[in-house]
Amino acid sequence: MSLTVVGSIAFDAVKTPFGSRERMLGGSAVHFALAASFFDQVHVVGPVGEDFGEDEHAVLQARGIDTSDIEHVEGGRTFFWRGEYGWDLNDRTTLDTQLNVFADFEPKLSEASRSSDVVFLANIQPDLQRAVREQCTAARFVALDSMNLWIETARDSLMETISAVDGVMLNDSELRELTREPNLIRAARHLKARGPSVVVAKQGEYGAAMLTDEGFFSLPAFPLESVVDPTGAGDCFAGGFMGYVAAHPDAELGHDVLTRAMAYGTTLASFNVEEFGVERLVRLTKEEISERVADLHRVTHFDEQPLALRG
Amino acid sequence: MSLTVVGSIAFDAVKTPFGSRERMLGGSAVHFALAASFFDQVHVVGPVGEDFGEDEHAVLQARGIDTSDIEHVEGGRTFFWRGEYGWDLNDRTTLDTQLNVFADFEPKLSEASRSSDVVFLANIQPDLQRAVREQCTAARFVALDSMNLWIETARDSLMETISAVDGVMLNDSELRELTREPNLIRAARHLKARGPSVVVAKQGEYGAAMLTDEGFFSLPAFPLESVVDPTGAGDCFAGGFMGYVAAHPDAELGHDVLTRAMAYGTTLASFNVEEFGVERLVRLTKEEISERVADLHRVTHFDEQPLALRG
Repeated sequence: MSLTVVGSIAFDAVKTPFGSRERMLGGSAVHFALAASFFDQVHVVGPVGEDFGEDEHAVLQARGIDTSDIEHVEGGRTFFWRGEYGWDLNDRTTLDTQLNVFADFEPKLSEASRSSDVVFLANIQPDLQRAVREQCTAARFVALDSMNLWIETARDSLMETISAVDGVMLNDSELRELTREPNLIRAARHLKARGPSVVVAKQGEYGAAMLTDEGFFSLPAFPLESVVDPTGAGDCFAGGFMGYVAAHPDAELGHDVLTRAMAYGTTLASFNVEEFGVERLVRLTKEEISERVADLHRVTHFDEQPLALRG
Repeated sequence: MSLTVVGSIAFDAVKTPFGSRERMLGGSAVHFALAASFFDQVHVVGPVGEDFGEDEHAVLQARGIDTSDIEHVEGGRTFFWRGEYGWDLNDRTTLDTQLNVFADFEPKLSEASRSSDVVFLANIQPDLQRAVREQCTAARFVALDSMNLWIETARDSLMETISAVDGVMLNDSELRELTREPNLIRAARHLKARGPSVVVAKQGEYGAAMLTDEGFFSLPAFPLESVVDPTGAGDCFAGGFMGYVAAHPDAELGHDVLTRAMAYGTTLASFNVEEFGVERLVRLTKEEISERVADLHRVTHFDEQPLALRG
């Protein structure tokens, strides 16, 4: 089977306390696709300009990703984002956003992209997300990401789209803002009642939490001594999570598989932040992923053992 | 054996979005002692004024806590703190602090308190912490807490005290400030190199992380749908952690016991925040604790299972 992602393809300029890059391949669909490519065939749907060339295609194709639904807009330029991070890498400042071809993006899915059984609607306008969702009639698991811009300017449309998907992945602050509920579990329950079977709250350096039919689950981020560039971490998390889901039939999508999906998402995100942009992901190996999932288990697992407490 | 805590005993006035209390028993030594009382005999050392009476002693004694080292200062008043929390319960505003008898506190330990094998130096001036540590010659595991005030005004003394203890428990922001190292693992390594075998970073609603001889460990907070008053959560965490340590001989203090100590600390803290002050802890049962440790295991545990990834 296969996995489709619809979202931004970008060039990013990033400065952190550990260095900077003036122009590197980025965008939510790119980060997602590279992470998910370890699990299944991935189709990328998104717009680029004339500045997007063979080299950029090659980065994705080297991981077996199908780039034939990357739409080249004549005379256009690719989405450009410039941002800076301080010592607190959870806080970032956007210095420049040039939507370019992304401003008029209308997703066009080929038969192959439409036929995927797992679909990720990365952060784009919720009407567009819904239009894509409706095209993907064969999909058994569709999830979406969003952002504060859409929560504030297109809340009703976003809620309608959420009712049409199986999974929602938002930052914890976005989840609280969208539901106007400060408690994270209640915020997740609120969204889940609208339809999705899985709600994931991404918590940056603190990890991620998830609400499913079987209850709540929480996993810390993988501990790293060096975090260089957090850009795209959430999309890599989604890529690892959705990739793991894609690798398992529907009948198995219970607590065990979904909690392991959290572990793979966490793992893919942890590699992504070790270097700028997709620099780490493009030379990541499947052996490194398996090893880190085992490490993540070790650094988060405690054994239960009965203890006689004082009454 | 037994467990001694030296720290503040207070009356707290607290307002949160969920209600308020004008005068309730509080203080780090009180929260710690109630949590630790489920694991071992606890001795409380701290000063109170003439406003501290039989009712307050009775709250502690009902949990079998030895209050004979609570020092009654003639003509004095007990430490008073007034604070308010907004919807983001991680942020609190201190409205009033009256140190009263706590200002001139010089810990005096009875033979029983000095002889404990496990000692917790709650947040007091680091010179005093060191003086207590030196008196407790029989102690096999001593840990301390501190705060930004001492980091900023008595950093050298605090570092000297840290070199003399086995465990350090700080908020993650304090750990970063003290070591001037933004990365949490490196900050923990930095402190651990000064002597302690265990460094714990408390992360509020996100949980806690720990560095030991055997590496890093991270545990989310127990997910709660209703958090009423976070006051004392860190001290209850410490009480559960140190209580669990006290319940195990030195030879067993490896990774398995310390990770379970994190689980018990997390569990005791989770009960504490469910109601105002110590209202929940005073009617907590050992059965509830064991049940929640099992729940915590369930909501944080994923099973490993090999997956064939795409190369």
